[in-house]
Amino acid sequence: MNQPPCTHTVGILAGMGPAAGVDFARLFVAACEDWLRSHGHAVCDQAYPAHWMAQLPIPDRTRALADGAAPQPLEAMAQGLAQLAGLGARAVAMPCNTAHAWHAALQERVPQVELLHMPRETAAALRAQGQERVALLATEGSYRIGLYEQAFAAQGIACVLPDAKARQWLMQGIYDGVKAGDMALAQQRFVAVGQALRAQHGDIALAMACTEIPLALPQAPEAQGWTLIDPTAILARALARRAYGA
Amino acid sequence: MNQPPCTHTVGILAGMGPAAGVDFARLFVAACEDWLRSHGHAVCDQAYPAHWMAQLPIPDRTRALADGAAPQPLEAMAQGLAQLAGLGARAVAMPCNTAHAWHAALQERVPQVELLHMPRETAAALRAQGQERVALLATEGSYRIGLYEQAFAAQGIACVLPDAKARQWLMQGIYDGVKAGDMALAQQRFVAVGQALRAQHGDIALAMACTEIPLALPQAPEAQGWTLIDPTAILARALARRAYGA
Repeated sequence: MNQPPCTHTVGILAGMGPAAGVDFARLFVAACEDWLRSHGHAVCDQAYPAHWMAQLPIPDRTRALADGAAPQPLEAMAQGLAQLAGLGARAVAMPCNTAHAWHAALQERVPQVELLHMPRETAAALRAQGQERVALLATEGSYRIGLYEQAFAAQGIACVLPDAKARQWLMQGIYDGVKAGDMALAQQRFVAVGQALRAQHGDIALAMACTEIPLALPQAPEAQGWTLIDPTAILARALARRAYGA
Repeated sequence: MNQPPCTHTVGILAGMGPAAGVDFARLFVAACEDWLRSHGHAVCDQAYPAHWMAQLPIPDRTRALADGAAPQPLEAMAQGLAQLAGLGARAVAMPCNTAHAWHAALQERVPQVELLHMPRETAAALRAQGQERVALLATEGSYRIGLYEQAFAAQGIACVLPDAKARQWLMQGIYDGVKAGDMALAQQRFVAVGQALRAQHGDIALAMACTEIPLALPQAPEAQGWTLIDPTAILARALARRAYGA
């Protein structure tokens, strides 16, 4: 075992929803542990980078994208990001896919930190894995602005979208399911979407491109053996690399 | 369903260790969800209180208590607590039992926030449950300063301590197990302690008074049916009450 690693403070801008924020923090700590092991460092409390998580009551992102008169999330997110910068964060991850609609605006408002981009990190990781075609499970807000479609296209990855009915199931699973604490409903809806996509496209990889989806789908008995891609875990590994200076 | 609840910003001073910090955040979010339901509020992202978690590389607490020449944690903890106060936290929880050795010093240094006291919250909750006798699973640091013994005595709860051998198993499970990422070792050591205590004292309640213990012991097949008390969960509920203004 060599010296304790050099670390940088990083931040997590979360609360979108709070359970997804906690899951991201768990994945980040696990990614740090993996980093330590793979670089020959001892795993102990003091080998982890300082990290701050802001779980803030930010207005709903999909609603804001659908209706310009609804409460908008940008101000609350920008304030949280600036506070994380003030705490010394060098890089910040936002465990909410839809929130990336405001990524450019946030990065412009707080240029002193690197705000990671979950769809781009995911697309790069999938390209590195050799994935050529992925089905996208996301919120209406994400579909509306083509968040993942653009990132996938830039890496030459084909993107399969669920039909209108399946998108409705996704929104029910996300909002009436995970965000409202009804995990059984969430699981039932997400499984239905996966089954519909697999009936049509075979054993296609399913990108769980809303942070609520990995809180319910991977545990479903029906989903065992499916190819599930978790952008939240990919983002957590990207943040761990920034925290350890890579 | 009535109006969204009034909330206060709260903080979590953590990193001792990082996995325990994440587990505390999970328990806090669950406690908030329970609070919302039991008070008739809709559960949605925006109904949760703003909460900030600082996961900081703080020097080891037990080592500092055993050896005054070892790196001491007070300065790093006080700085984190002051930063949480600066972010607007009204109350702060510290998901590390041994760290409460510095509770009074921290509260004195940062008087503008309420720093919850995990052993006292636990003792009050056990008293309310009618527990009269509890076995204490903790770090050497906690035993050294009588952290829980005093809080239990103040509530009239008898405290059973493991013998020297069992304490050694606890330290191995905490440091070589959970903190080093070896959950199998942790589980084996914690189970051995529980079995030894139960062989001597029957079906005694076991207080998992180090935040690493509930990460491994409750999942052990041998521990099913044991009476396990989780001070981390009790602290999470206490912080949720503060966040909702109670």
